[in-house]
Amino acid sequence: MSQSTMQELRAQVDTINLQILELLNKRAKLASEIGKFQEEMGTTFYDPEREAFMLTNLELNNKGPFSNETIKALFREIFRASMALEEKQARAKIKVQRQTDDQRTIITLPDGTQLGNGDFTVISGPCAVESMEMMDETAAALAERGVKILRGMAYKPRTSPYDFQGMGEPGLQIARQVANKYNMFITSEIMDQSQISMMMDYVDIFWIGARNMQNSFLLKAMGRVNRPVILKRGLSATLEEFLYAAEYIVSSGNPNVILIERGIRTFEKWTRNTLDIGGVAVLKLETHLPVVVDISHSAGRRDIAKPLARVAKASGADGLMVEVHPNPPVAMSDAKQQLTIPEFHALMDEITDRQAAY
Amino acid sequence: MSQSTMQELRAQVDTINLQILELLNKRAKLASEIGKFQEEMGTTFYDPEREAFMLTNLELNNKGPFSNETIKALFREIFRASMALEEKQARAKIKVQRQTDDQRTIITLPDGTQLGNGDFTVISGPCAVESMEMMDETAAALAERGVKILRGMAYKPRTSPYDFQGMGEPGLQIARQVANKYNMFITSEIMDQSQISMMMDYVDIFWIGARNMQNSFLLKAMGRVNRPVILKRGLSATLEEFLYAAEYIVSSGNPNVILIERGIRTFEKWTRNTLDIGGVAVLKLETHLPVVVDISHSAGRRDIAKPLARVAKASGADGLMVEVHPNPPVAMSDAKQQLTIPEFHALMDEITDRQAAY
Amino acid sequence: MSQSTMQELRAQVDTINLQILELLNKRAKLASEIGKFQEEMGTTFYDPEREAFMLTNLELNNKGPFSNETIKALFREIFRASMALEEKQARAKIKVQRQTDDQRTIITLPDGTQLGNGDFTVISGPCAVESMEMMDETAAALAERGVKILRGMAYKPRTSPYDFQGMGEPGLQIARQVANKYNMFITSEIMDQSQISMMMDYVDIFWIGARNMQNSFLLKAMGRVNRPVILKRGLSATLEEFLYAAEYIVSSGNPNVILIERGIRTFEKWTRNTLDIGGVAVLKLETHLPVVVDISHSAGRRDIAKPLARVAKASGADGLMVEVHPNPPVAMSDAKQQLTIPEFHALMDEITDRQAAY
Amino acid sequence: MSQSTMQELRAQVDTINLQILELLNKRAKLASEIGKFQEEMGTTFYDPEREAFMLTNLELNNKGPFSNETIKALFREIFRASMALEEKQARAKIKVQRQTDDQRTIITLPDGTQLGNGDFTVISGPCAVESMEMMDETAAALAERGVKILRGMAYKPRTSPYDFQGMGEPGLQIARQVANKYNMFITSEIMDQSQISMMMDYVDIFWIGARNMQNSFLLKAMGRVNRPVILKRGLSATLEEFLYAAEYIVSSGNPNVILIERGIRTFEKWTRNTLDIGGVAVLKLETHLPVVVDISHSAGRRDIAKPLARVAKASGADGLMVEVHPNPPVAMSDAKQQLTIPEFHALMDEITDRQAAY
Repeated sequence: MSQSTMQELRAQVDTINLQILELLNKRAKLASEIGKFQEEMGTTFYDPEREAFMLTNLELNNKGPFSNETIKALFREIFRASMALEEKQARAKIKVQRQTDDQRTIITLPDGTQLGNGDFTVISGPCAVESMEMMDETAAALAERGVKILRGMAYKPRTSPYDFQGMGEPGLQIARQVANKYNMFITSEIMDQSQISMMMDYVDIFWIGARNMQNSFLLKAMGRVNRPVILKRGLSATLEEFLYAAEYIVSSGNPNVILIERGIRTFEKWTRNTLDIGGVAVLKLETHLPVVVDISHSAGRRDIAKPLARVAKASGADGLMVEVHPNPPVAMSDAKQQLTIPEFHALMDEITDRQAAY
Repeated sequence: MSQSTMQELRAQVDTINLQILELLNKRAKLASEIGKFQEEMGTTFYDPEREAFMLTNLELNNKGPFSNETIKALFREIFRASMALEEKQARAKIKVQRQTDDQRTIITLPDGTQLGNGDFTVISGPCAVESMEMMDETAAALAERGVKILRGMAYKPRTSPYDFQGMGEPGLQIARQVANKYNMFITSEIMDQSQISMMMDYVDIFWIGARNMQNSFLLKAMGRVNRPVILKRGLSATLEEFLYAAEYIVSSGNPNVILIERGIRTFEKWTRNTLDIGGVAVLKLETHLPVVVDISHSAGRRDIAKPLARVAKASGADGLMVEVHPNPPVAMSDAKQQLTIPEFHALMDEITDRQAAY
Repeated sequence: MSQSTMQELRAQVDTINLQILELLNKRAKLASEIGKFQEEMGTTFYDPEREAFMLTNLELNNKGPFSNETIKALFREIFRASMALEEKQARAKIKVQRQTDDQRTIITLPDGTQLGNGDFTVISGPCAVESMEMMDETAAALAERGVKILRGMAYKPRTSPYDFQGMGEPGLQIARQVANKYNMFITSEIMDQSQISMMMDYVDIFWIGARNMQNSFLLKAMGRVNRPVILKRGLSATLEEFLYAAEYIVSSGNPNVILIERGIRTFEKWTRNTLDIGGVAVLKLETHLPVVVDISHSAGRRDIAKPLARVAKASGADGLMVEVHPNPPVAMSDAKQQLTIPEFHALMDEITDRQAAY
Repeated sequence: MSQSTMQELRAQVDTINLQILELLNKRAKLASEIGKFQEEMGTTFYDPEREAFMLTNLELNNKGPFSNETIKALFREIFRASMALEEKQARAKIKVQRQTDDQRTIITLPDGTQLGNGDFTVISGPCAVESMEMMDETAAALAERGVKILRGMAYKPRTSPYDFQGMGEPGLQIARQVANKYNMFITSEIMDQSQISMMMDYVDIFWIGARNMQNSFLLKAMGRVNRPVILKRGLSATLEEFLYAAEYIVSSGNPNVILIERGIRTFEKWTRNTLDIGGVAVLKLETHLPVVVDISHSAGRRDIAKPLARVAKASGADGLMVEVHPNPPVAMSDAKQQLTIPEFHALMDEITDRQAAY
């Protein structure tokens, strides 16, 4: 055959392409009408029996050269595209999804302090409340550098039941007193919905830990409180699961959710976890919620705190979380990763200088 | 120098080894006495300030050639060994730890059915209760093959808040009715401690899902019910974390815990998770609790159910868990991995034949 | 709207489905003709500029409701399906893919010993050749139990350049002598194609280690030798990558490839690697090549060798590989995982008894 | 007992601590002398039979309360510490290890261009050489922004043997010509040591890909060429393995090694790999070699190239690597991750502005 025949064949393909295009869009419109029906009837878009019927029908009518398998694979893509279209129309995607480039959720605290407004916020404090003295000493140093959100952890989720589980309510009392003294806000981990009413007396920002990221009862309960919620990514949660966990809270009524990337579990042993900084960049594209980088748990070692703080800032995140303790070697948990107070000051110098320079 | 000098040097090392040995044991005895003191006074064995003092003292007195860092590392090992010794003496290790080769926890159900006695138990049922008809049809088939423990899942922890979350209490009512009809026992997932009293009316064996494996409040609450508990390994939990999660339940008072390995999260894409069969073998060494293999979630595909069932049995596990549904393609969840009823019968033939052959 | 209207809408969708089906197949025939053209002209099926043109043309003509992005995604699937069809017609899928349920590659060694014929083969020997004495002692024990394939490793890929790298050619000489004495076959790792001609004098089965699984030059070179090749799965290779690595060898002319699953790298620390037994089951579905389970490297500990040997057999694998050493604690590598000779005998008892029982 | 007795017990422990300290250092001196002996005799420090003897001797003399297991574990730590000391004295650790805070390897190219001197270097070019036109167009844009090191990849390691494997030597000729035209240097992947002499005609900086990171024959061969070598981290290599791979090259004679972090394989699906930015920070502490961040393969998507470029710079890395192609959608490989030329300019603006600001 000649080159001209090749041209002709290609022209025929082009025509078929446009015919398929037209049919696909026509099909999408019909699917959309069916979808509206289903919505009125309260059924879901996904109807596996109908899909099974359509696929069987296609198989019966397929004369090749495409195999039944290929045809079914292609139509499954078409079904999925239709379903995606219907879901989008019905719900305009999930609530935590960013719809426009400049959409952002800004968390405003009672004194007007904001998180997620484009500034870079530092959240800090010890791993756990251990005593009034250490909380006071830490908070004084943090307040000096303008930190407004103080870790006041009184319930610690620990691997072993024999490890220190936190001071409980007395720890919250200490945290509250110290926060009041230095005009700071307390964020503290809640581990069960039964704690909500008690904690409301002490806590400004609820905190859901990595181990509870998919505790949907707790997430939904957090959707019903009128305080902001910090949600940590699970130890091996995908970004998609992370966003859906946030969606549990937001769809239950509380729009003020802050996401924390805290490193994921991998095979690497020189860091405690692997900080997923690419994930932070993707989150900033996908969601309008503020994203904070936990540079303590992700590294598990204090000697790389400075570069990680710079990295957090450069990534476009809305802030960082770092653990600070007056005497880390004797801390009751996370001894290797908490910064000393002088190390904290050095870290603040590092990111503040650079902040100025941007 | 000559070979004889080498011999002399080695003899000197041998002498020093024995001197260190003697001192280590002498030190351990003293530490043990101090430990008894602390126990009486109600303080814990771990005293970080005392450790910090001892390490500093060693640093001040170290003249090398070992660096301070090495000396501190070696002494930290010695401290840890002492502490382990004290804990062992006080508590004889953790409760779920197997102490002797033939120690085993046997779960006995009301009708005398046992799990963990050396037989191979099959736990089965659909992913979730969807209707009376499908539960009845499934249970009838399972009962025919001697299955006694029926999945009656009415609360489904789902990634998205918009996915099917289970039928709730009406699902439990269906499950209970069907179980009564076929003389079976219901196992059903509990997601929050607030559900306990309601679920006590329907459920014979509580089930804690992978996402709640480290929900310590729920674990401790399960330690206070007098029903057996199935505990699933978290999506990326280490075996150590898994055993400590079980320890939360057992140390809170409930010795009847069944562990389920359900595959861990890895990079591999041709299976939904990676079944950690080596982990099952290690668990059987480390703990006296029964261990069951979930061949449905670990694979996420039904076409390897038969080899995985054989593997589960060969591994020394106490049983397997497999999802069965009358019509998997229309199931509201886990459509790809649930077996049809004929596939279930074929699977039972496979492991029953082999059982006979062992 | 009424239910009847819903039926009508669905009927319209069904009609469109069949129209799209017809157009897809018509398109496939045209693409196939174009493909033949290209083949004659010596060009490849994949023509990115033509694809770019077609996609642009579709974008220009798309009036929605599908977004341009969705349309392009769907058509990329169609292009890929067409291309796959052309490639299939030209090459009938990849060579290692199993085409029928009973297709199997059987490796036959010079004395008629077979691997992959449905029996369960044991491959064994020390991690590395260290001396004539230890090789002889090991081989004697293995031969007694009918093992025919002996590890004779003389080049060890090690993490550190300062670790023991193997004895080199003198090690191969020892291995050959011992194998001749006991009528065994030597399998030995090749690390670079420059070693082929030298190793041909000593080695019956070439061995490609996990670190070289994607060394395509070595794979292609192994495709040109007329000896069987054992290919180990890479430390973090997907099953798909593993099969394509085998395809490099087979498509270069050597059909006699044996796959070894040796555990993948995960976060779990109680085993050296995580044995992917589900992967073995999937491989047995996907490929006709023999699959062997390495129970030494996957576990990294000898105390679970027995259950893993049973598991390997139950999985449907064609054999297992286990390291045996006369005195593991002084071995120059892999000290923790090599079996002693009495442990090896116990393991053989375990799987031979069960073999009889099947 | 009284508090005073507790004080006495602690004083006794303190005394024993110092006695153990003295013995440990005395032991270390003896071990060091033995080590010198062994060095003279050409044997290695590690003598497993001697260790086995010492451990048995300790077991025989152990009267408790420490178990034999604990005693052996503690002495194994002591042996390891001694051995580490000897190795350090003999070799001052491994060559790639940073000895002082300001030690850095600076790579100097023929025209005086440096990498690793504290500046931030951009390495760029298309995934593969596809034609003269696209190389010229790309190089022109890169040269305009001061890029000196051009990707000129002619051999592509691909998963499938049927994927595009690169243009081979003709591709190198194109790359060389283009580099000469724009006064750039070519870096190109070598896949087998047989290619060295041919590639010496075209290539300024050899490149070892992720799949060959532990190909020790190739690494050692690269140790014998007098050109710099870029070494990519393996898909699932630990940082320790990565440094040891570099040590293979450096210990074979070539000190000019550049490390590239390119993301590791995890369960996360929204990025192709997970950029281990914490690992980069750790590498900068541990080694004096330059470290470069590959923002293309780590993300696998171009929409987060800007934040990742900022992150790379903030991490303290010596540069970044980014793929650029005149028309990514039609690229023969890595279509989703290569930047267009306008995107490349935007990226350069991003990091150059910030460079100025630092």
